[in-house]
Amino acid sequence: MARADGRSPDRLRPVKITRNWLAHAEGSVLVEFGGTKVLCAASVQDSVPRWRRGSGLGWVTAEYAMLPRATNTRGDRESVRGKIGGRTHEISRLIGRSLRACVDYKALGENSVVLDCDVLQADGGTRTAAITGAYVALADAVAWMRKRRMCPGDPLVGSVAAVSVGVVGDTPLLDLCYTEDVAAEIDMNVVMTGAGEFVEVQGTAEGVPFGRPMLDTLLDLAAAGCVELTELQRQALA
Amino acid sequence: MARADGRSPDRLRPVKITRNWLAHAEGSVLVEFGGTKVLCAASVQDSVPRWRRGSGLGWVTAEYAMLPRATNTRGDRESVRGKIGGRTHEISRLIGRSLRACVDYKALGENSVVLDCDVLQADGGTRTAAITGAYVALADAVAWMRKRRMCPGDPLVGSVAAVSVGVVGDTPLLDLCYTEDVAAEIDMNVVMTGAGEFVEVQGTAEGVPFGRPMLDTLLDLAAAGCVELTELQRQALA
Amino acid sequence: MARADGRSPDRLRPVKITRNWLAHAEGSVLVEFGGTKVLCAASVQDSVPRWRRGSGLGWVTAEYAMLPRATNTRGDRESVRGKIGGRTHEISRLIGRSLRACVDYKALGENSVVLDCDVLQADGGTRTAAITGAYVALADAVAWMRKRRMCPGDPLVGSVAAVSVGVVGDTPLLDLCYTEDVAAEIDMNVVMTGAGEFVEVQGTAEGVPFGRPMLDTLLDLAAAGCVELTELQRQALA
Amino acid sequence: MARADGRSPDRLRPVKITRNWLAHAEGSVLVEFGGTKVLCAASVQDSVPRWRRGSGLGWVTAEYAMLPRATNTRGDRESVRGKIGGRTHEISRLIGRSLRACVDYKALGENSVVLDCDVLQADGGTRTAAITGAYVALADAVAWMRKRRMCPGDPLVGSVAAVSVGVVGDTPLLDLCYTEDVAAEIDMNVVMTGAGEFVEVQGTAEGVPFGRPMLDTLLDLAAAGCVELTELQRQALA
Amino acid sequence: MARADGRSPDRLRPVKITRNWLAHAEGSVLVEFGGTKVLCAASVQDSVPRWRRGSGLGWVTAEYAMLPRATNTRGDRESVRGKIGGRTHEISRLIGRSLRACVDYKALGENSVVLDCDVLQADGGTRTAAITGAYVALADAVAWMRKRRMCPGDPLVGSVAAVSVGVVGDTPLLDLCYTEDVAAEIDMNVVMTGAGEFVEVQGTAEGVPFGRPMLDTLLDLAAAGCVELTELQRQALA
Amino acid sequence: MARADGRSPDRLRPVKITRNWLAHAEGSVLVEFGGTKVLCAASVQDSVPRWRRGSGLGWVTAEYAMLPRATNTRGDRESVRGKIGGRTHEISRLIGRSLRACVDYKALGENSVVLDCDVLQADGGTRTAAITGAYVALADAVAWMRKRRMCPGDPLVGSVAAVSVGVVGDTPLLDLCYTEDVAAEIDMNVVMTGAGEFVEVQGTAEGVPFGRPMLDTLLDLAAAGCVELTELQRQALA
Repeated sequence: MARADGRSPDRLRPVKITRNWLAHAEGSVLVEFGGTKVLCAASVQDSVPRWRRGSGLGWVTAEYAMLPRATNTRGDRESVRGKIGGRTHEISRLIGRSLRACVDYKALGENSVVLDCDVLQADGGTRTAAITGAYVALADAVAWMRKRRMCPGDPLVGSVAAVSVGVVGDTPLLDLCYTEDVAAEIDMNVVMTGAGEFVEVQGTAEGVPFGRPMLDTLLDLAAAGCVELTELQRQALA
Repeated sequence: MARADGRSPDRLRPVKITRNWLAHAEGSVLVEFGGTKVLCAASVQDSVPRWRRGSGLGWVTAEYAMLPRATNTRGDRESVRGKIGGRTHEISRLIGRSLRACVDYKALGENSVVLDCDVLQADGGTRTAAITGAYVALADAVAWMRKRRMCPGDPLVGSVAAVSVGVVGDTPLLDLCYTEDVAAEIDMNVVMTGAGEFVEVQGTAEGVPFGRPMLDTLLDLAAAGCVELTELQRQALA
Repeated sequence: MARADGRSPDRLRPVKITRNWLAHAEGSVLVEFGGTKVLCAASVQDSVPRWRRGSGLGWVTAEYAMLPRATNTRGDRESVRGKIGGRTHEISRLIGRSLRACVDYKALGENSVVLDCDVLQADGGTRTAAITGAYVALADAVAWMRKRRMCPGDPLVGSVAAVSVGVVGDTPLLDLCYTEDVAAEIDMNVVMTGAGEFVEVQGTAEGVPFGRPMLDTLLDLAAAGCVELTELQRQALA
Repeated sequence: MARADGRSPDRLRPVKITRNWLAHAEGSVLVEFGGTKVLCAASVQDSVPRWRRGSGLGWVTAEYAMLPRATNTRGDRESVRGKIGGRTHEISRLIGRSLRACVDYKALGENSVVLDCDVLQADGGTRTAAITGAYVALADAVAWMRKRRMCPGDPLVGSVAAVSVGVVGDTPLLDLCYTEDVAAEIDMNVVMTGAGEFVEVQGTAEGVPFGRPMLDTLLDLAAAGCVELTELQRQALA
Repeated sequence: MARADGRSPDRLRPVKITRNWLAHAEGSVLVEFGGTKVLCAASVQDSVPRWRRGSGLGWVTAEYAMLPRATNTRGDRESVRGKIGGRTHEISRLIGRSLRACVDYKALGENSVVLDCDVLQADGGTRTAAITGAYVALADAVAWMRKRRMCPGDPLVGSVAAVSVGVVGDTPLLDLCYTEDVAAEIDMNVVMTGAGEFVEVQGTAEGVPFGRPMLDTLLDLAAAGCVELTELQRQALA
Repeated sequence: MARADGRSPDRLRPVKITRNWLAHAEGSVLVEFGGTKVLCAASVQDSVPRWRRGSGLGWVTAEYAMLPRATNTRGDRESVRGKIGGRTHEISRLIGRSLRACVDYKALGENSVVLDCDVLQADGGTRTAAITGAYVALADAVAWMRKRRMCPGDPLVGSVAAVSVGVVGDTPLLDLCYTEDVAAEIDMNVVMTGAGEFVEVQGTAEGVPFGRPMLDTLLDLAAAGCVELTELQRQALA
């Protein structure tokens, strides 16, 4: 099976990580996975949520959203509808959880970083691009804090990257674009540390359940993709 | 490490599936995984959502919720707060997706089944208990429909069960209760078909990332648990 | 006129009060009036609402809700619709007001009890069953508090029970089931203390206004019903 | 006990019913019970709610609200808070139910009348003033419809008026003003037809439960008050 | 072009300013511009919004709303719809901004005045009538505060009035009624101080853009109207 | 007074109009006025809002929003708060009104164009940048429609541009940046056609009211700015 853009099944799309895209944010990245463009802004706050006050520990959280015309047909704004949809909630939670995996709350001190991931253009893999870009924005925000001696230690204990894998027409594919995503029988998002360990594995059978061998193949594919993304993050931050 | 209730690490809690718990619903089950009690009601509707009308295909969806005092300390009602939280959204979507994995939409015809899973008492694993119980309620609702010749074929192409696994103090455990869930370094929910294939795998590192061998161990544990749950579903429906 | 279940007009349906139905709540009761099943949970909080702080007085409040498939056809969840309906509001307020009639706020101290009344199955009279059951849950919660010496005195100054009465086809009936309720020309809910005094009288002409003699007959019927319910509460708490 | 304004216990406050207060509404009344001023507007619509279409029957409904500075201290707007409170819901439902008691839906045809009752100034008894005034606005709206031959018959089968009664310091009082209402041990609202029958009886013990003799006294007091109000409505409409 | 009510193009409608229309508010005015009736209530609060606390400065704000049957056809209540519309928001902000132009925050001290402007009947120019009436209510509220020595100085540094102008069929008109407003090609609202300076100019081309000479003509017309309104405010307050 | 960036008082900031910034939208522009960056997406729909169906006329509307970290300190998302603020409403309405001034609804046919203006980075003048950029996106969307022969005629009857003017320390300034905007005594937004006529004039005294001469000076300044912006739009579209 040939992919729409001629990639081999185990290849990422061209990935571009542009730092300091915004003037105000303590860290900001425009991350592109092919046609998917996500603007990631890291905002530092010298306070923590109420339930964490006085603990000496920091916090990292995320909010994901899509501009109405990021997609092929225009979607309603969640602000206009007056509520956030289930998919938005789910992805925001996933991004926050993923980034917290590389954070030492104690070393962060009673500070927070909020990661806003706004999809400007969507072509599949928006959540994995968001996680990959948000890590770089977070790293910049942490550097900003450390320069100002806001943190008692180094809050970053590793790096985090994410990629989607899936099966289309029996072929396991890395980093699905939108048309592949829609056609996929299996859809999996994998978040890994730079050290090659798992932070999050979310696999879903869309239509046909899958056996252990296919699961293993997909995990291998994702692991290789995350190694590449980790290297790209490293280069961007160099 | 000894478990609070003395179970060995690879044992389920006592599971109880009580059918026909409600008078009005076409299928209804009170499912208990130890102290976790979920009331699953299957409601048949002879119509489908707007976006599916005229397709000849049916639909299955789910809504999950928790009574305010299902938990140790009382939680606010989502109806009073005026919005559904991210966790509720996420679990409702998971249950719906999981059950759709065993449904043939064409054989269902243009009918819907809504699965309401209300947690009356929570002690960990509410989402996996909900999926396991909802399958039985769905099976009863499908039997009800077939008796009335509402469906062009047999909409059930298999069965679905779910269980949680996790790691507490380096020990992999099956079917975590609440205190174990809170202490877990890794938390995973696995949904499988009665034929032993994966429908959904959701693993999260809570604190410490995990390697491939631990992932494999947890998947083995979950697979064995799902085999047991499938047998209990079969007995309940016999 | 014969009643659907063969009862004479002045008879209650079989009433069942099961205490300690839930593991976590300080008081909990599954109350059944025939096919109507309401789960009443009493939650103790060692604080009071903001407007009452520093007064030395306690507070008791209630929230009523119905599971979506408690009824014959599935109803939308109020959490999904994003707002609470007028009927729910009205009944929650009635339950709270009724229970406060047997509470000495000073003896309660600055503590609160929240009574969650969730209708698991509805067959008429859900609000009167809720009040009758919630009183027992409240009594258990108060006992729990007194054991822990949380209250300066005995906060319970009496008991409270409630029943519906109505007129169907000119016949005054006690404790209407759903089909009777729908057919009723007059519908009345009466809340009384164990000492036989009125806490709340709510009578509504559905279609045809009624004269004083009919009002008197209905009040007599309700008073007799409340005496019976008070006795059943007493037995349950013995 | 002397009343603040020197009235005897069984006297109404000065009642003023001003018709045609608004230019646009098909019926409109500014009703005053002493310092309580409610603007009642009846809006005719040549349609009915969806659930009633095709039935040949009409519908009457009501919405009650209070301006923010109707009261002694300013209250938040429900539109700003984004939701309607329980009290507002409850009173809107009461007004609608009360007025429907004097309406023949068949004679109304498939038309609706909406009664908006907005409290411009509050001094106790706003709901009973609203019902009493809304009846006159409804009568004007019905006359407007009949002149245009919109109705197959005469939709008004009687009249409806309402008054509050209560007990302050053991004295039963008619038509309580705000300071009396706050001090009342028992609070009752009674809606009656012009023919002297009950449409709605809502009595609540605020603090101390009450016996049957007191209930009887209050009903007598309310019945006499409603006779007076009915006469005032008749004069206003003459 | 003759105007519906025979006015010449540069004439205001009959304006009526009735002070002390409400019993509870510290200042209250029923203002009428022809058929437009707005009830303006000024509420004094001895506090300021959170963001202004400790500044020693006061605050003035406004909320505008329309009763559902103020207009020719009934509109839905914003409280029922659960959100405030854009037009309401916009006008509330305009009124607040306009009145703040004549207030010395320092002389007001840490006190607030909230101006509720509720349209009881609408016939064009509701926002300009609201501003004109609200100024008088504010002046009364300020007098009330000064009598109680709540303010360190005189918070009123001038007066404010507002009027609409527009172009219908090429004729510039002052103070448009509803039918003129609907037909207008240009619509402008002008807020001026009693000293003849501009506080707010909001002009909109409805359909056809306009040149500088027409803008000048409309500003002249508005300025003359505001002079007249200022005199009427002065007389009302005398 | 020297401006922060050394501009003379009557100079625009560097303006950049990048077309086709998005892959999916029928027209899209990233417009920059100095540090202000707004992404304008025009979405074509072959339908009109319900109230306009069957009229043969088209519709153009707009929605404005700001990303949470467009500003110096992070703002809450309106989707998370569950409602749209007054400022957002006001600006969305202004943009829609402004663009409709250059549209012939009849020539558009029963089609709609929605203009989403999302502020990625804010440094003053976001609404005027949005209008100026949205016109270009609209022109591209109209060209897209005409190529597909969706419109009965040419819907664009002119062009529209907008600029802010204001007074800081007595000096009239064109195109204020954020720090100037905050310091301004007078703040005005002017929307003009390419033919030099006014579409919208919104001037507000922030603190000190202003006389007619100052108003005239500001209008001259704005008119000159709009001539420049019109030329830049023309070049971008060439």
